[in-house]
Amino acid sequence: MKKVNLTEKFNLFDEHWSPRIVGELNGQYVKLAKVKGEFVWHSHANEDELFLVIKGTLKIEFRDGSITLNEGEFYIVPKGVEHKPIADEEAHILLLEPKSTEQTGGVESDLLVDNQPWI
Amino acid sequence: MKKVNLTEKFNLFDEHWSPRIVGELNGQYVKLAKVKGEFVWHSHANEDELFLVIKGTLKIEFRDGSITLNEGEFYIVPKGVEHKPIADEEAHILLLEPKSTEQTGGVESDLLVDNQPWI
Repeated sequence: MKKVNLTEKFNLFDEHWSPRIVGELNGQYVKLAKVKGEFVWHSHANEDELFLVIKGTLKIEFRDGSITLNEGEFYIVPKGVEHKPIADEEAHILLLEPKSTEQTGGVESDLLVDNQPWI
Repeated sequence: MKKVNLTEKFNLFDEHWSPRIVGELNGQYVKLAKVKGEFVWHSHANEDELFLVIKGTLKIEFRDGSITLNEGEFYIVPKGVEHKPIADEEAHILLLEPKSTEQTGGVESDLLVDNQPWI
């Protein structure tokens, strides 16, 4: 494996809500995503999911509140918890989640990406 | 769980080679560490380990080479691979590894910290 430079990897794609895989360890993937607008309400039955903001601001709505993450802040959404990520302006985020994680937790959506490629 | 601000967490401690736990997901810990000088040669038999540099520069030596990580760069050391982290100047790093991971992989060292606390 080579080292991963986050800025260089983010420069390789522009699509929103289309995570790229940049690392793998202990059955988990490290992913990078550019996000803008609203994602769909969903949960992951068996997977905790970490969101670390590299650039911009990410809001995560829950059924009983919300949290706003700025650059250098992370939050771990526990398995089974419904959430909806939102970004008013484009944000760059690092995700960490098990390889088994489905992007929308089984919820149908036009935003669903069938194949998340390595870059 | 509350969100984690990396800068705020790094301001809570000064010790080198003394990781603090700041998150847990899917059987892994997210840890922060301040490092300076040389750690010991070691490996983790069953655990891959991710090093992400938040500030400064971290060099990781391997038996057959080395890698230098600057801010915004990460590397995943695969299980079983001997490595020795080195930082000429203080560096701030984020670690990701299974909860079972022993800091020195069983190698005796004065640098070994018995208890890695949550902050």
